[in-house]
Amino acid sequence: MPLPPGFVDDLAAALGDEFVITEPERLATYDCDGLTGWRAQPACVVLPGSGVEVQAVLRLCERDGVPFVARGAGTGLSGGALPVADGIVVSVARLNRILEVDVESERVVVQPGVANLDVTRAVAAHGYFYAPDPSSQQVCTIGGNLAENSGGAHCLKHGFTVNHVTGAKVVLPDGELLELGGASIDGDDGPDLLGVIVGSEGTLGIAVEVTLRIVRVPEAVVTQLAAFTSVDAAGDAVSRIVAAGILPSAMEIMDRFTIQAAEEAYHPGYPDGASAVLLVELDGVLAQVEDDTAAVDGICRDAGAFEIRTATGAEERALLWKGRKGAFAAMGRVSPDYYVQDGVVPRTKLPDVLRRIEELSDEHGLRVGNVFHAGDGNLHPLVLYDAAVDGQVERAKTLADEILAACVDAGGSLTGEHGIGVDKACAMPSMFSERDLEVFERVRRAFDPDGIANPGKVIPTPRLCGEVPGPYRAHPLERLGLAERF
Amino acid sequence: MPLPPGFVDDLAAALGDEFVITEPERLATYDCDGLTGWRAQPACVVLPGSGVEVQAVLRLCERDGVPFVARGAGTGLSGGALPVADGIVVSVARLNRILEVDVESERVVVQPGVANLDVTRAVAAHGYFYAPDPSSQQVCTIGGNLAENSGGAHCLKHGFTVNHVTGAKVVLPDGELLELGGASIDGDDGPDLLGVIVGSEGTLGIAVEVTLRIVRVPEAVVTQLAAFTSVDAAGDAVSRIVAAGILPSAMEIMDRFTIQAAEEAYHPGYPDGASAVLLVELDGVLAQVEDDTAAVDGICRDAGAFEIRTATGAEERALLWKGRKGAFAAMGRVSPDYYVQDGVVPRTKLPDVLRRIEELSDEHGLRVGNVFHAGDGNLHPLVLYDAAVDGQVERAKTLADEILAACVDAGGSLTGEHGIGVDKACAMPSMFSERDLEVFERVRRAFDPDGIANPGKVIPTPRLCGEVPGPYRAHPLERLGLAERF
Repeated sequence: MPLPPGFVDDLAAALGDEFVITEPERLATYDCDGLTGWRAQPACVVLPGSGVEVQAVLRLCERDGVPFVARGAGTGLSGGALPVADGIVVSVARLNRILEVDVESERVVVQPGVANLDVTRAVAAHGYFYAPDPSSQQVCTIGGNLAENSGGAHCLKHGFTVNHVTGAKVVLPDGELLELGGASIDGDDGPDLLGVIVGSEGTLGIAVEVTLRIVRVPEAVVTQLAAFTSVDAAGDAVSRIVAAGILPSAMEIMDRFTIQAAEEAYHPGYPDGASAVLLVELDGVLAQVEDDTAAVDGICRDAGAFEIRTATGAEERALLWKGRKGAFAAMGRVSPDYYVQDGVVPRTKLPDVLRRIEELSDEHGLRVGNVFHAGDGNLHPLVLYDAAVDGQVERAKTLADEILAACVDAGGSLTGEHGIGVDKACAMPSMFSERDLEVFERVRRAFDPDGIANPGKVIPTPRLCGEVPGPYRAHPLERLGLAERF
Repeated sequence: MPLPPGFVDDLAAALGDEFVITEPERLATYDCDGLTGWRAQPACVVLPGSGVEVQAVLRLCERDGVPFVARGAGTGLSGGALPVADGIVVSVARLNRILEVDVESERVVVQPGVANLDVTRAVAAHGYFYAPDPSSQQVCTIGGNLAENSGGAHCLKHGFTVNHVTGAKVVLPDGELLELGGASIDGDDGPDLLGVIVGSEGTLGIAVEVTLRIVRVPEAVVTQLAAFTSVDAAGDAVSRIVAAGILPSAMEIMDRFTIQAAEEAYHPGYPDGASAVLLVELDGVLAQVEDDTAAVDGICRDAGAFEIRTATGAEERALLWKGRKGAFAAMGRVSPDYYVQDGVVPRTKLPDVLRRIEELSDEHGLRVGNVFHAGDGNLHPLVLYDAAVDGQVERAKTLADEILAACVDAGGSLTGEHGIGVDKACAMPSMFSERDLEVFERVRRAFDPDGIANPGKVIPTPRLCGEVPGPYRAHPLERLGLAERF
């Protein structure tokens, strides 16, 4: 489906020729995000250089009914930035300026294309940091973080993106600007639209300016690694730490399979014979961190840890984290393909769900590595498969879906931090009634009456459910018209 | 405007006669909330006994186009529970059961009529508490707290209601049930409707079941009182405490006028000659609280405090808090009437705004006492007046409006914790563009297409702006039809 006549010319007039991409070989860069199983080439990619230019682009989209998909760094894992073939991609790559650093008010104002870690870099000299830390934080953007309500290992204590965005200027699908929140910490005016926009996965508009809360770098940080002979024992330690009233900034568990893969890849020196490794990070005032470190040590020993290492310096800590941070990449050495699932379960249900994952893994004959944010019950099972082997893509997808169903059955939810996107839209009815989905859609229509903002994402398109992704497979959204997609 | 024929009978058939009130002398109880300047007698009050009964009531309202106003304990200060004369009040007073206490998962499930403090009472034996603590917490309900996104003195560290509600079952204006959130800590599925519903002031539906996060009682709590010779010096101490990276659970300032009124009423023994009193509360692990207490002591002395008292035991601490907690009531001894304003300013702008409040007070010849949550810049100026003196009601309202305008001008916002209600609806355009308000209204319509849920609140009704409240004054909403009100 080609774009309407004159549309690209109007974009070029608004932005300048060099910022409107239509050559197929350049468009290929944008054909998927971190969910590489599905692809779709957009009709056009634009790179606006200001909020006003984003408004101009969306006004043209509204005028001609052209769908648009916003894109940060393209690191999302649920296909939120997957293009639609008859639409455009609006990249925020050029909107990468830090507009204001106000340390006294503990606020930073940034454009949406600023990389997550660059916010911390801009304030580090003042003793501050930006807390949400998705693993892709070197490159992923604040705009993408806002769209996905991104988390990270340290969100257990420090909260998610939604807890750190205090204001945003958002261009709505008709090109008008909505200003929400601002300088003050407090504020209870009107509906909390900022809360709906954070995590809306690009379906309500495009943020062009974001105000973020920054946090003081803690006086002391300690990382502890405890080795256990079972994942259950590590999980038990986590429960006891929580019950003791300790709030670590991170609690991460890796299972034996993941430990081995990480050890082979990076040689972080994980203890021999460990069937589970628990990483606990404590931060805060020195005296408190010291107390908590001793308490966590004792709790882990009581729960059966056979080895505990404690690191206080930055380099030593980095070594303990190395295997965890590289765990996904290490899977690339073990398996040609893998699929990262993202589900949440109540912490008390972790052992049950892990056993269920093991059963499912056996049933489908595919290995599953487990890495998880244990403190908040956010699982990241890694389903390993080989797309070259007939039927494995389908089996991997089925296995991953069944793992997600097990999370929901246990009273959990479909995603902790990766979003719904196209990947999990078809699972939404397992968690929400038809009625709930209808209300979601009505709220979405309140922002986007024409259904041009990232259509086909989040809310399921029943006709497509059951389709299976594959390497370089074109996404079936391409086969539907705009009305059916929304 | 009478109710449609048969409507009251249908209500009685659904709930039982005794839970449908139509006698004028009993209806009088419900003619206002904590904003007593405006009154309106509803046509009927219902007291449903279950979520299913709330559904039945709202189905009837939708069938006949009858507006409804939800009511908790009626302690709200912005008129959110002000009835509409041709509508009904849905009281949640009978929905007062705690349904589940799950200490391991740190969750409590309650009905909306449970009093705030009763949640803490239900979990105190396990070493937990419910953190948001509005001053009315003895009686105000969780349903009302959810509607208003209530705060309290300790929200500086512990967060607002929105940070503690993890799930809710909400009856929508057509009587259908919407289930949001649930057991898990994390969760990133679909639009964050829970975030929109918390703080929606009864305009989107009625919560019939609420899941709350509970928090461990800290190991140590210390309250410090520091006396200063000026409010500026006390404000300076607050800035320095924040800059030192200390996060107290509360930081409250009272000005000289309020101190005197509290001293005369309760004799808490505030230091002689204090022009400002700063209360700082620290909680957490003992070692950290001790460190912070010493640091706050030093900072306050550096900032010019001439006397500092430190209390660790519960009784001693209660004595220091006594004057603050009773400050509003103490005004009743000094002035026949007072109006509590609620505005927010960036913390760095506090001194400027306080000076402006002093000027405005002189200009209008009315006294203003200042009590504020200094840590998060939430002001509560108390405008004193005498309704019996001709013109004072109007002057008090004008003065309060001008104080609010000064907050907005300083980059703040219209309300920190009391909500918009009817009281501040007309000030919304000072903070939001016409376009912003239109989006708010569209979101509201997504939940409430007929405009029957608490009409006339939050979004301004231009024809009514400029009308002035008075003692026992009927609210002008009465004079408008439903369509114009929404």
